[in-house]
Amino acid sequence: MKTNSTGHQPGPVKNSHLTNDAPTSEAVESLSTVSLRCTECAALYPGIEGGASPRYRCDCGGVLDVEMQFNLPRTQTAPFDIYANFDVDSDLLPAAGAKLRQIFDERASTPPIWSTSADKLLLDHSGVWRYRELILPAPEQFIISRPEGNTILYPVGMENCGPGRVGHRQIGVYAGLERLFLKHEGENPTGSFKDRGMTVGVTMAQLLGARAVACASTGNTSASLASYAAQAGMRGIVFLPAGNVAGGKLAQTLAYGATTIQINGDFDDAMQLVERVCGELGIYLLNSLNPFRVEGQKAIGFEILQQLDWQAPDWLVLPAGNLGNTSAIGKAFRQAYELSLISHMPRFASIQAEGANPFYRSFKQGFASREHVQAHTVASAIKIGNPVSYTRARRVIEESDGIVEEVSDEEILAAKNIIDRSGIGCEPASAATVAGIRKLVERGIIKRDERVVGILTGNLLKDSLTGIPQGSDSVVVEANIDAVRKALLK
Amino acid sequence: MKTNSTGHQPGPVKNSHLTNDAPTSEAVESLSTVSLRCTECAALYPGIEGGASPRYRCDCGGVLDVEMQFNLPRTQTAPFDIYANFDVDSDLLPAAGAKLRQIFDERASTPPIWSTSADKLLLDHSGVWRYRELILPAPEQFIISRPEGNTILYPVGMENCGPGRVGHRQIGVYAGLERLFLKHEGENPTGSFKDRGMTVGVTMAQLLGARAVACASTGNTSASLASYAAQAGMRGIVFLPAGNVAGGKLAQTLAYGATTIQINGDFDDAMQLVERVCGELGIYLLNSLNPFRVEGQKAIGFEILQQLDWQAPDWLVLPAGNLGNTSAIGKAFRQAYELSLISHMPRFASIQAEGANPFYRSFKQGFASREHVQAHTVASAIKIGNPVSYTRARRVIEESDGIVEEVSDEEILAAKNIIDRSGIGCEPASAATVAGIRKLVERGIIKRDERVVGILTGNLLKDSLTGIPQGSDSVVVEANIDAVRKALLK
Repeated sequence: MKTNSTGHQPGPVKNSHLTNDAPTSEAVESLSTVSLRCTECAALYPGIEGGASPRYRCDCGGVLDVEMQFNLPRTQTAPFDIYANFDVDSDLLPAAGAKLRQIFDERASTPPIWSTSADKLLLDHSGVWRYRELILPAPEQFIISRPEGNTILYPVGMENCGPGRVGHRQIGVYAGLERLFLKHEGENPTGSFKDRGMTVGVTMAQLLGARAVACASTGNTSASLASYAAQAGMRGIVFLPAGNVAGGKLAQTLAYGATTIQINGDFDDAMQLVERVCGELGIYLLNSLNPFRVEGQKAIGFEILQQLDWQAPDWLVLPAGNLGNTSAIGKAFRQAYELSLISHMPRFASIQAEGANPFYRSFKQGFASREHVQAHTVASAIKIGNPVSYTRARRVIEESDGIVEEVSDEEILAAKNIIDRSGIGCEPASAATVAGIRKLVERGIIKRDERVVGILTGNLLKDSLTGIPQGSDSVVVEANIDAVRKALLK
Repeated sequence: MKTNSTGHQPGPVKNSHLTNDAPTSEAVESLSTVSLRCTECAALYPGIEGGASPRYRCDCGGVLDVEMQFNLPRTQTAPFDIYANFDVDSDLLPAAGAKLRQIFDERASTPPIWSTSADKLLLDHSGVWRYRELILPAPEQFIISRPEGNTILYPVGMENCGPGRVGHRQIGVYAGLERLFLKHEGENPTGSFKDRGMTVGVTMAQLLGARAVACASTGNTSASLASYAAQAGMRGIVFLPAGNVAGGKLAQTLAYGATTIQINGDFDDAMQLVERVCGELGIYLLNSLNPFRVEGQKAIGFEILQQLDWQAPDWLVLPAGNLGNTSAIGKAFRQAYELSLISHMPRFASIQAEGANPFYRSFKQGFASREHVQAHTVASAIKIGNPVSYTRARRVIEESDGIVEEVSDEEILAAKNIIDRSGIGCEPASAATVAGIRKLVERGIIKRDERVVGILTGNLLKDSLTGIPQGSDSVVVEANIDAVRKALLK
């Protein structure tokens, strides 16, 4: 299974620098409670199989979703460190939910001490692994974590904005909401929400004995994969649509040392190619097809709920491209509701760019057909014409009595200008959230007094050149006081 | 004191959009325990004066330093919420130090709940205002906080790097240290350490009734000022040396809506001009001359100590440009030692770029004279020829038995490559820290088994184009499987 250096061969090429080793029995054992369910035909597969190649799709071609037997805390005994495996029994759920909340709050309150061998403590400080019972039952020594998460939930509504945030409050005024929070996922270590899925994806790669990991990406996933692969000592390989990636994201990916293959094609071409080449060469595939990345993205939802003291909002609004976040955060809220962590489900609003709106088109037909488009939008992170997580996301919109909305590039850039000038800032795709909220409030779908959480997905610095308004307030002057005075008082 | 719209006048120009209002009596009262001491002639001034313009320099021209009567906790009673004003009495210090540690740890352990009117809670979550007794006694309603801080202290030494960090450990191997931590200040909201000083600086501006704030900057300060001014609803004005600011930083500053004046000159020219124009127009000056920004930067030191469970390291190593960080973190450790928060002072090592090394030159002469240079270095954030905080920083080096070292641009970029490829990443100036540590370990000044904390000052995304190695692993290929396979297996 190790090296095979001869050139031409039929069947999968093995390469010692790329191909996975077999997973250890410990790894296989640890994931015995994890299964993969086809989102199309409901077929069930093991989460990890010793000896076999990792599975990314059902035999029917459908996308897979992780199913887990939760290892819930025993509620009859007081100490936090005593657990028991028991099946989800509905009578026990309220008590188990209360206990889980207590465990998560206890971990979130761990003092920030980073001593020599404090790996367990570091995991409690991760905004993903803090919720590990609901993410992945990986043994600690396999986990690759920065840690990540712990992003700020900015209160920016007209009512819930404190006196020290008169600038931030302008976002609430623009959106027309009294109680609005923005969760800024651009504050993750590599500057986007992708780090939450990637810590879980690269941990799975570690469990599987991977030597190389690969993805196709509009940029943020590449940067995140490159960073986490480097931390784990794996080779990172990223496929980007040439000329369609924001400068900061490409530079990050190269700096972290990933092999960067720019495809003369669009994102959807790159997606197809990476899936095929990973299968051929035995490279672990970490694009959004990978079901374990979705499990990590769920943590955005759990962290929002914890920051709101487990009081679910009325609405959760987010940008929609490949639909991974809609799927993941929807799944998180559904599980939180099923486990009695919260008492009601929020409604979801997924916001697409008008030029990259296949999910919106399907929604307008009552999801009668799955649409594809040739994507065009200034918001490169959601410039996706054929979203991988369509079925998972559709379920979230349907179950939550949710909605899909579209906004124009002009509306996106106008909202970005408001977010930037409030002092918070974000990348263009993130601004679709606020543009969408404004539209839905104007249309009366979101009520002015409802409690709304919007997601900002990426850092301002990720794409700093897009959306700087024409005629921004910048002048070049000579180095003397008269020139400066004139520039200021003009 | 409000408007004055007539054109030509002798004396200071008043402008309703720029000039400060007078501070309220509440603001003046709250800062009654704060004084400003000249670092050159030791003259003493009040921290805030009702009616008068803010003071940035001593009458002798010297830079000012904040002195505070600490409002220490009463140690005789148990509850955290009972304080008493008492002078620093050396017999009481060990107990007061223990109590302060307890208060700070309690605040750091506050569950992350962000409810509607949770301003006080938000302050406990700030990595600056958590230590407010040692920062600034500002009333809560004046404080402008994101919150900021809470940056990761990465364990990266050969011994203290856990199993999930084999990539990060390469930094420890490169540096030659068993127990090395890197404090990544690039994880602050605007991507640099400057946010810590800026939250305090803009809070002072709020206390003083400022309508506009200004600075000169190599870029990171501009971005931070622009963001915090926007949050506070003030006009932000930044002076940048034209053509000498990293792209991401300039774009950030414009996006946050600051008035951006690019000076045809270097950083030192911009510094002189902003000081003069602020005095003339009554704009609150927030460059590194401002003594209150230094008080905020101290929080880097307090947060490191808290993350190390109040066990001071043997060495603190950091990049040195304008010397604000050396001054501030040195002051933090000195105060922590005086208040018995820690039991010994670490030694400081300030690292300069060879082409911007005035502090190094002075150090080599035993600080016999204060040197100026014409600065040239790839590390734009420390490209400063005449550092404002020279005297404060000199005191830190002398008191801590510290050292000043210089590293070449090649050494900086080599260290940056190691930090980037570990998966952590930083801006060029930050890499001076690791380059300097490696040099000092090689020279036997830092011992291999000493416990060392290095500061990374800025995010990789701040200056993503500098230092990408020639021949980075990027290719453009056609959108077909043969081309991709060939690119990967070449």
